[in-house]
Amino acid sequence: MISTPEAAQKAASLDNLSENFARVRGDTVRLCDSLAPEDMVVQSMPDVSPTKWHLAHVTWFFEKFVLEPFARSYQPFNERFHYLFNSYYYTAGDMHKRPQRGLLSRPTVAEVLQYREHVDAAVLELIADGGRDPAVDGRITLGLHHERQHQELLLTDIKHVFAQNPIQPAMNADLPVPEALAVADHRFVSGPEGILEIGATGNGFCFDNETPRHRVLLSEHSIGSRLITNGEYRDFIRDGAYETSSLWLSDGWATVNERGWSRPLYWNDGLDEEFTLGGVRALDLSAPVSHISYYEADAYARWAGARLPTEAEWEVGARDHAIGGNFVERGLWQPAASDGDAQ
Amino acid sequence: MISTPEAAQKAASLDNLSENFARVRGDTVRLCDSLAPEDMVVQSMPDVSPTKWHLAHVTWFFEKFVLEPFARSYQPFNERFHYLFNSYYYTAGDMHKRPQRGLLSRPTVAEVLQYREHVDAAVLELIADGGRDPAVDGRITLGLHHERQHQELLLTDIKHVFAQNPIQPAMNADLPVPEALAVADHRFVSGPEGILEIGATGNGFCFDNETPRHRVLLSEHSIGSRLITNGEYRDFIRDGAYETSSLWLSDGWATVNERGWSRPLYWNDGLDEEFTLGGVRALDLSAPVSHISYYEADAYARWAGARLPTEAEWEVGARDHAIGGNFVERGLWQPAASDGDAQ
Amino acid sequence: MISTPEAAQKAASLDNLSENFARVRGDTVRLCDSLAPEDMVVQSMPDVSPTKWHLAHVTWFFEKFVLEPFARSYQPFNERFHYLFNSYYYTAGDMHKRPQRGLLSRPTVAEVLQYREHVDAAVLELIADGGRDPAVDGRITLGLHHERQHQELLLTDIKHVFAQNPIQPAMNADLPVPEALAVADHRFVSGPEGILEIGATGNGFCFDNETPRHRVLLSEHSIGSRLITNGEYRDFIRDGAYETSSLWLSDGWATVNERGWSRPLYWNDGLDEEFTLGGVRALDLSAPVSHISYYEADAYARWAGARLPTEAEWEVGARDHAIGGNFVERGLWQPAASDGDAQ
Amino acid sequence: MISTPEAAQKAASLDNLSENFARVRGDTVRLCDSLAPEDMVVQSMPDVSPTKWHLAHVTWFFEKFVLEPFARSYQPFNERFHYLFNSYYYTAGDMHKRPQRGLLSRPTVAEVLQYREHVDAAVLELIADGGRDPAVDGRITLGLHHERQHQELLLTDIKHVFAQNPIQPAMNADLPVPEALAVADHRFVSGPEGILEIGATGNGFCFDNETPRHRVLLSEHSIGSRLITNGEYRDFIRDGAYETSSLWLSDGWATVNERGWSRPLYWNDGLDEEFTLGGVRALDLSAPVSHISYYEADAYARWAGARLPTEAEWEVGARDHAIGGNFVERGLWQPAASDGDAQ
Repeated sequence: MISTPEAAQKAASLDNLSENFARVRGDTVRLCDSLAPEDMVVQSMPDVSPTKWHLAHVTWFFEKFVLEPFARSYQPFNERFHYLFNSYYYTAGDMHKRPQRGLLSRPTVAEVLQYREHVDAAVLELIADGGRDPAVDGRITLGLHHERQHQELLLTDIKHVFAQNPIQPAMNADLPVPEALAVADHRFVSGPEGILEIGATGNGFCFDNETPRHRVLLSEHSIGSRLITNGEYRDFIRDGAYETSSLWLSDGWATVNERGWSRPLYWNDGLDEEFTLGGVRALDLSAPVSHISYYEADAYARWAGARLPTEAEWEVGARDHAIGGNFVERGLWQPAASDGDAQ
Repeated sequence: MISTPEAAQKAASLDNLSENFARVRGDTVRLCDSLAPEDMVVQSMPDVSPTKWHLAHVTWFFEKFVLEPFARSYQPFNERFHYLFNSYYYTAGDMHKRPQRGLLSRPTVAEVLQYREHVDAAVLELIADGGRDPAVDGRITLGLHHERQHQELLLTDIKHVFAQNPIQPAMNADLPVPEALAVADHRFVSGPEGILEIGATGNGFCFDNETPRHRVLLSEHSIGSRLITNGEYRDFIRDGAYETSSLWLSDGWATVNERGWSRPLYWNDGLDEEFTLGGVRALDLSAPVSHISYYEADAYARWAGARLPTEAEWEVGARDHAIGGNFVERGLWQPAASDGDAQ
Repeated sequence: MISTPEAAQKAASLDNLSENFARVRGDTVRLCDSLAPEDMVVQSMPDVSPTKWHLAHVTWFFEKFVLEPFARSYQPFNERFHYLFNSYYYTAGDMHKRPQRGLLSRPTVAEVLQYREHVDAAVLELIADGGRDPAVDGRITLGLHHERQHQELLLTDIKHVFAQNPIQPAMNADLPVPEALAVADHRFVSGPEGILEIGATGNGFCFDNETPRHRVLLSEHSIGSRLITNGEYRDFIRDGAYETSSLWLSDGWATVNERGWSRPLYWNDGLDEEFTLGGVRALDLSAPVSHISYYEADAYARWAGARLPTEAEWEVGARDHAIGGNFVERGLWQPAASDGDAQ
Repeated sequence: MISTPEAAQKAASLDNLSENFARVRGDTVRLCDSLAPEDMVVQSMPDVSPTKWHLAHVTWFFEKFVLEPFARSYQPFNERFHYLFNSYYYTAGDMHKRPQRGLLSRPTVAEVLQYREHVDAAVLELIADGGRDPAVDGRITLGLHHERQHQELLLTDIKHVFAQNPIQPAMNADLPVPEALAVADHRFVSGPEGILEIGATGNGFCFDNETPRHRVLLSEHSIGSRLITNGEYRDFIRDGAYETSSLWLSDGWATVNERGWSRPLYWNDGLDEEFTLGGVRALDLSAPVSHISYYEADAYARWAGARLPTEAEWEVGARDHAIGGNFVERGLWQPAASDGDAQ
């Protein structure tokens, strides 16, 4: 989950590591406030992990990579949990198989929450210990960003779980409905040419796949001024795009036909409603289109007379924008038009 | 679940219909006493139904076949439940697909228990109504036998669920350990020849596949004096049976190889422990062998120089025995040697 | 392939073993007269074997069970053929896997025909040897009946192969078109009650699954006077049978829906043409319906207010009829109405 | 199949279009000289096409893209062949499905060769027609390069077909055995840094994916002086690479375990023999390693303390080398060390 710049900056300060740790860890549990234990067990496809697994796995991360190497007197909560909640080292027999995560009724949610408390207490104690190894702070910070990622996955995954249910329950019926904004016109704006640098600058946290910073050659190009909306994507569908092979990459067209794709994952047949974590709602035409595949994005771009940007064009085009929009603090749990997109 | 003869006879009396209804319905819920909500959601293979589904489905039976036709003022608890918990009429789109029962986190266990209470109250009110349709009692009795069957399925299914968990939790760690008895020698006893009748006699309840009573021709044969034990089956394994193609039907041998079978489902590699609803326990050598397929039973019989009995030979051979053994009141939740088998 | 009674009787005489051997073996090769080598390689599904495999497998039977034990000086044609053409002993690694028979381009058809000649010469020499083991004749006779069965399979299988081809080639465009006869009315005739004997009588050849002759109890019943025709089956379809769940066994209805069945295997959508070994032809309404499953036969019987006969009812009902009808000598290679069915 | 530079240059001259056309088309048929019709039907996996399909598909290319638009009076050989041999436009129902190409016994090889002759005559007539459309030559040249590609595929595919056969037949037992050369030491040589151009220069034929020529930024790097040999790859295997997860990309390691990979596709267990189109032969330790996946190449590079080159590094590194090595004229039909690699 991505926070506002102010919240992110505050969190980045190591002076506040304890506070930040407590807040991120608490946020994860609070995301589950409206879930029943039953909801937290189900795995609706191999790529989905049960909520309970997410809660335990991010905790295992701190146990394995912070407490085990750095907290000498730490006692593991349960030796078997390593096998169940490891997802890092893939060797035969070494970890519980991903597609079988939904077969685990035990440990229960209550036991997983106890596991969290056990680990949280030990980490906070380690932070409070003035003489700790300097590497510890980096590991904890990494663990918190890892947990932020899993907060997103948790919501993405539970959305898929609820969507399989024919009675289409809302995860949280009180979820706010985003205001539909009249978005600004979509324009193409010139991007820079020449040799530029992309990748992490070394200021603050980054994941390893953001390094090393390196040079790229950008050719003359232009890039869209904002994201494509549900309304624009609906125009693409209504123009017959899903029946027009010439708009698609060869593999994309094969996939469209094999899987019977005709619209984004959670839209209804009539293209006027979508399933959300707040239940079935009217399609928000001003919101950025979401839950589409690479093939669909590529076909949309071709239909619009454009192409998808390269990673470097995107990064260079995005980095000079003021950071703004729909952050987790808004509590929408889904993409929405933001003020920056408004006319 | 099969009761002792005394309990069964008492239950059969229509004078006690209310009492019997309350007891059977309560028994089902009591079987779940040691289960967490998480346990009751999981479907470990297509043939397994989640506990929650069993609890709801047997309730739907009374709603659909008793209350809907006979209780005029009955209000369904939730109209969508018909779709979710029907397993009787298989037409495209008409019912929730069996292999997807484990994808349903909702309704929760608590909601299913409310559904049970809603239906129970309505059925008990219908029973209490002196002027009810004579057909009602038969339907209710059928529903209770149906629920007894699902009590067995519930335990069979939850055993499979727990067995998939690498930490091998016990459903109920307090489950009694049956006493290992020295079973009597296995003998072959002559069965009758000639034309005999099998099938339901019309005294008391029967399922439709027990009718009509009809004549069968039995040839000269003999049949085993008691069930085959785990110990005897282990001798069969140790004699190399799972590597000896000549002991198996052609389809059986193919299945053994395709699935890598080498022992009964819940036995360990060492053939000295088995997974039970009480957790991993020492293999009870005196108990009847269980969790084996038709192919394995057939191969055992061939190894022992015999063949499996026909249905008619079994029914005729069994019906004159005094009823005795390991009934549900004993609370073992698994096959066990009984006094009748002792030396 | 089933011969006329006269041909069958002649063949059964051991005096004519050489002649009979030569004729049956030659018949198999003659069935392939209109096939190209390419046709004889293809395996269109796991249950289909390539023509080439049939030609080789029936030959291997004589090599393995006649020549190897009884012809002392026999030299195998090719030691590797045992592995490729054995289908009898199913143990891991012991024989070439059935679904992979279509991956074998070698040995070529010409090599398989050489294999046949090699084996035929050795068997004929063995027959000509006056002092041969008395068991040899029985083995050879079994091999010839085995080959007769494979002649049927060969045609059944190659029909499936050709049917997969979008250009729908005829195996033999000159195949005679059976005369459409006006079949006699279908009547139900009483079958006998009481204890009867079924199974092989010991006069002449039988397969092992026709023994032992044994007693069965038949209840009062009646059985149809002739086979059900394509025309009658089409009435069943047009009455909506494939959309009516109540006509089907539960497993049958599931299969109809899973596989999208709506008519016999080789019929067209319009129910007026069928694919035959002579190519696409008008549906012969007077011919017995064929290429339907057990489930479809069962549903037809239920629709017609009847049930399928038991094996014993069928055998007892059939055995007193004069043998007549559509034998292989007629060269139709498919079911057809015969004079015995005519009004 | 790649020709020597001299042959390629001669072929590129449009003055020789008729001659070049005849030679390329004839080469394809000559590649099949040692094949029986049976060999040319089999499809051993979905990615393999039968030889017969290759022969017909490249012919269909000329019919569809040269004769149909440019040869006014051309009569198609068979209207149904468009459906069978088209692989270009993937829309539902529009073309015969790729995994079913091995189900087609018809048209026979002889018919496909007649199809080739019919099309060849029409193309040669079109070439001979002085007043032809200037676009025709480009299309024909494209068709010939397309056919050269399919010559490679044809050999690659038939190798897989023969390899599935337990009797491991040679496609051509007379295939020359390449001389084992002592290859030169492997060195890393510096590649250029800066902005360079890659892609087709516009001199001579290219495929569309070689255009447009464009600029790329190369960083400081070095690249191997020659290809990795079978001997070097065997060292990698013997060092335990297939059991060492740290050498592999995550997806690669998953694939190694799922598919049980332990060596290149056609090597034997003992790592001293390989299956070739000439049958099973001693492993040529000096030949470039082949039949390995991207994952295996990547893991090898990591084991060797290097990484795989980017496409641009490869193209820039390769283009200044004199063209030399193992061309089709050598008739080896497999990679082999060439003089340029020798010490």
